[in-house]
Amino acid sequence: MNFQTQQQFDIETHVRDIAVSARAAARSAARSTTEQRNRALLYAAESIDASYGLIRKRNQLDLAEGRLSGLSDAMLDRLNLTESRIAQMAEGLRQTADLPDPVGEISGVVSRPSGIRVGRMRVPLGVIGIIYESRPNVTADCAGLCLKSGNAVILRGGSEAFHSNLAIVNCLHEGLEAAGLPKAIVQFIETQDRRAIDVLTSMEEWIDVIVPRGGKGLIERITATSKIPILKHLDGVCHVYVDDDADLDKAVPIVMNSKTHRYGVCNAAETLLVARGVASKLLERVTPLLVEKGVELRGCEASCELESVMNPASESDWYEEYLAPILAVRVVEDIDEAIGHIHKYGSEHTDTIVTENLRNANRFLREVDSSSVMLNASTRFSDGFEYGLGAEIGISTNKLHARGPVGLEGLTIQKYIVYGDGTTRR
Amino acid sequence: MNFQTQQQFDIETHVRDIAVSARAAARSAARSTTEQRNRALLYAAESIDASYGLIRKRNQLDLAEGRLSGLSDAMLDRLNLTESRIAQMAEGLRQTADLPDPVGEISGVVSRPSGIRVGRMRVPLGVIGIIYESRPNVTADCAGLCLKSGNAVILRGGSEAFHSNLAIVNCLHEGLEAAGLPKAIVQFIETQDRRAIDVLTSMEEWIDVIVPRGGKGLIERITATSKIPILKHLDGVCHVYVDDDADLDKAVPIVMNSKTHRYGVCNAAETLLVARGVASKLLERVTPLLVEKGVELRGCEASCELESVMNPASESDWYEEYLAPILAVRVVEDIDEAIGHIHKYGSEHTDTIVTENLRNANRFLREVDSSSVMLNASTRFSDGFEYGLGAEIGISTNKLHARGPVGLEGLTIQKYIVYGDGTTRR
Repeated sequence: MNFQTQQQFDIETHVRDIAVSARAAARSAARSTTEQRNRALLYAAESIDASYGLIRKRNQLDLAEGRLSGLSDAMLDRLNLTESRIAQMAEGLRQTADLPDPVGEISGVVSRPSGIRVGRMRVPLGVIGIIYESRPNVTADCAGLCLKSGNAVILRGGSEAFHSNLAIVNCLHEGLEAAGLPKAIVQFIETQDRRAIDVLTSMEEWIDVIVPRGGKGLIERITATSKIPILKHLDGVCHVYVDDDADLDKAVPIVMNSKTHRYGVCNAAETLLVARGVASKLLERVTPLLVEKGVELRGCEASCELESVMNPASESDWYEEYLAPILAVRVVEDIDEAIGHIHKYGSEHTDTIVTENLRNANRFLREVDSSSVMLNASTRFSDGFEYGLGAEIGISTNKLHARGPVGLEGLTIQKYIVYGDGTTRR
Repeated sequence: MNFQTQQQFDIETHVRDIAVSARAAARSAARSTTEQRNRALLYAAESIDASYGLIRKRNQLDLAEGRLSGLSDAMLDRLNLTESRIAQMAEGLRQTADLPDPVGEISGVVSRPSGIRVGRMRVPLGVIGIIYESRPNVTADCAGLCLKSGNAVILRGGSEAFHSNLAIVNCLHEGLEAAGLPKAIVQFIETQDRRAIDVLTSMEEWIDVIVPRGGKGLIERITATSKIPILKHLDGVCHVYVDDDADLDKAVPIVMNSKTHRYGVCNAAETLLVARGVASKLLERVTPLLVEKGVELRGCEASCELESVMNPASESDWYEEYLAPILAVRVVEDIDEAIGHIHKYGSEHTDTIVTENLRNANRFLREVDSSSVMLNASTRFSDGFEYGLGAEIGISTNKLHARGPVGLEGLTIQKYIVYGDGTTRR
């Protein structure tokens, strides 16, 4: 056996061992009581609060290494664990503990003419594999949601957040141990070898779903090779459409918040669509504010004519997820052209309309085929925490299983249960 | 261009044309009114009733060809459109029309502290591809469910049911036309070339989900190559477990009904598990009845000792979906061994316990990880029609999206909708 084969063998064995013990731990998780799982979450939150200094220190280490290795500003922003983000991690775990336990819930029991009663019982999926980059808060959020919903989780964080992630996983293990649950419910793949991802996504016998979170390249690679179903979104090309009947006092803050609240996130707006009738008035107000924030504007011909500060947009700009202070701007004729643009160039992530016109509002909400569709609200709300799911495992633009921010419900499935009394089929 | 390349090109073009026009028709279906879709279903049902003679004639043609080409009895049974099965097709369409329209339903709207209101809206999946064998009633059932739920459907039936399927599709087209909807909502791939399946399952741009229904070989092949998510079950190795505390007056008819009601179907029982304490009494009663029906019994060592008519079962028998008058029989120590057996050898399709013991009943219902789990009822009830879904698109043993018989709900997905009033994120 040559060196490479030996190494390959070791990674396979290592990941398989993790997957097999995760499967066994998933049975413990599924059988554990609600109270046990909640206690583990609350202890883990306590541990995160108590470890604040250590987590910051480890995060500073990752940030310093990231700066040296030339990570982009968007990447560094995602990586940065500010005081409020650490507090939000702990708060997320407490919120998750507070949520109703989805497991074992029986619903929709009806009697059928044959004499049987049929209903559905909510059960955990089993083992969830999370492959992510940059944001270390994903570690706590995702592990918390998986644990609450009776699943085991295998975490595979990015090397750039390695020290931060390890510090957080340690808090989670402390929580599990304090609640008398196996630590193996939360597994962390420590090897930084990228082949671990290929091995992980080939173990369909032990793992039920893969959630990739990170750059488009990572997600495309995983999608192309995984044998396990994937819950994912690829891009966040989010649109703000300002309708003819928009209240500009609502439109201006929504445009500003959607674009400039935070740049390196998937629910930031990338394209502003504005109806011709209000284009001049809106751009007059919003352009100086955006320029003041340092946002580069790339406009269609009509936008460039209205505001000289705009650079001309090219066709590829409409497809682009900038994750940066750049906004594409396009004047459209009406709501039909806006919806057409979104269906052609959008990524089915999050799109919002600003209007006071009920008919247009309803058309947009119904016809725009995205995972989150909004009326008079900032695209930045597209988030499990904001929706009240108690953090999110990710955002899905899949057509199957779950669409939009995925919380506890998306980590479970309903099986059918049938009650008879010696009942047979005629 | 040589002949083969030319042919390949034609199949690709043909299937792509169908997929593209299905995608366009899906938009019409999604926008159509509930009343329009219901009218199409009722007209189609009427057309099936009116075409009874023609459908029977075309079905006889398929049956005759099937007998000549040596189809198995199970296949011929599936293919056979009896008078009651044709009536049930029409009745299924009428039931589907009677069901509430899932599309556009808004649920779970809550106010969040940020000022937004968040809820979910149910929307169609888009284009559904159905690849099936033998059973021509699938044509009406599946197309009806897809239409009702605002989807377009591409049907690819087996060559053995070609004439029957065409006659049924014709009735569906008459229904669509009478309701003023495009016929392209229901598409039928007429070419019998098997490569059409490979082309169909590679068109992830136009098709949202593939539902394969048929033999294990077909489903395995599609699963291995499809780029589109699949809703499926592979086997139906269904178990009847007769517990120590079973009422044998319920157990005997449940065993008989689960095994002998119909052989060539996925929800027929393949294995009888019986607790040691009642094994002798149960087998004494049920063995002569099974033998009388011509069922071959393959028993474990203990069963063979109790009933001399049994043939010894081999390890592979426990994995087998016979689809034939054969039943594997195994004596188990207790409910733990029964659950262990089901998890090891089962297919997560349908399993039933016969017991009067509440604790064992609850353990079985919760712990057996199958898509349908039953108490004191025949496995034959595992069926969308019996569950009140108004026919089924198929049975799924997937962990994601839908588990068990899949009806209208499984053909839709919920997207998030957010209402604000100029609301921005802090």
